[in-house]
Amino acid sequence: MPRVSQDHLDARRRQILDGARVCFARYGYEGATVRRLEEATGLSRGAIFHHFRDKESLFLALAEDDAVRMAQVVADQGLVQVMRDLLTEGSAHPADWLGTRLELSRRLRTDPEFRARWAERSDQLTRATRERLLRQHEAGKLRDDVDVDVLTAFLELVLEGLVSHLAMGLPADHLTPVLDLVEETVRVHHRNPAGAARP
Amino acid sequence: MPRVSQDHLDARRRQILDGARVCFARYGYEGATVRRLEEATGLSRGAIFHHFRDKESLFLALAEDDAVRMAQVVADQGLVQVMRDLLTEGSAHPADWLGTRLELSRRLRTDPEFRARWAERSDQLTRATRERLLRQHEAGKLRDDVDVDVLTAFLELVLEGLVSHLAMGLPADHLTPVLDLVEETVRVHHRNPAGAARP
Repeated sequence: MPRVSQDHLDARRRQILDGARVCFARYGYEGATVRRLEEATGLSRGAIFHHFRDKESLFLALAEDDAVRMAQVVADQGLVQVMRDLLTEGSAHPADWLGTRLELSRRLRTDPEFRARWAERSDQLTRATRERLLRQHEAGKLRDDVDVDVLTAFLELVLEGLVSHLAMGLPADHLTPVLDLVEETVRVHHRNPAGAARP
Repeated sequence: MPRVSQDHLDARRRQILDGARVCFARYGYEGATVRRLEEATGLSRGAIFHHFRDKESLFLALAEDDAVRMAQVVADQGLVQVMRDLLTEGSAHPADWLGTRLELSRRLRTDPEFRARWAERSDQLTRATRERLLRQHEAGKLRDDVDVDVLTAFLELVLEGLVSHLAMGLPADHLTPVLDLVEETVRVHHRNPAGAARP
């Protein structure tokens, strides 16, 4: 039997994750049966579960994979850009992310055991957000009267709201200026309102 | 047979809503069986469904009742106070609100027909938030460089994030300064950072 190269294994793993992402987003966690995972990935159950122990491990790997990709966008462009992507149809991955994230938040809500498994790997996004804010702080672009941890938690809370909002199928056309406001809130301010304190 | 007074009808309706709120929060919509609703309200199914056509109508009435109560707090104290209440254990109604709101957002997500029924009555909170912001604007307490509708949508988005965050059982100890930041964001600013624009 030929030895399977690492490249081949990686490609196979990627193929499974990409198919599974579509499948979970479309049918939800429970609805993503092994049969449907086979169809979505184009692989047999044997091949799928050679790479992932079980469906939950596959879903966790997918959520982690998405978190790493989101963290990469955060590192490059900031969490507000991740949110803008969620509002923009036709951009690279928003629908994917949203599907996985929705299932993730539902399972976190309803399954304490899953919550414990996820807790160990859920901090990529927080770390990426925090690190980017620290870099922006050093570059003098960030407001310095509020702790970076508070700004990080603020951005994450708005992201959670946006995911929930989109999940409920509520209209989102009006949210672009809201994200502008959110972005402005973490930055050094350049407005000088009537009530500004005197030196 | 004695005529049933309006007061009596109102009290009965209130009794049903209060019991049902606890029941839905505890068991979720599907888990809130008629039997459990009877136990939670202390009334027979006959009495319950004399007042409400069916379980969905009861849940909608409850969600609307909570929205009216939240709107009242918003009118008096603002949406940020509603959010602070959600963080404070032992305050008046937060656990109640949260339970109903969680079920509401889950059902909005999964049931388009329900979404349509709710859409007709879901704007109390938006209206109350908007009206309070307009009053604050007139009183000169609100920033005036951002449209009131944007500020309203901003506050609602943060509320959605907070509800989702609490629903996932994530730690919330660090969120008080985040709500301070949110509150400050809608207000007239009195800070005068280094980069402030010159007149």
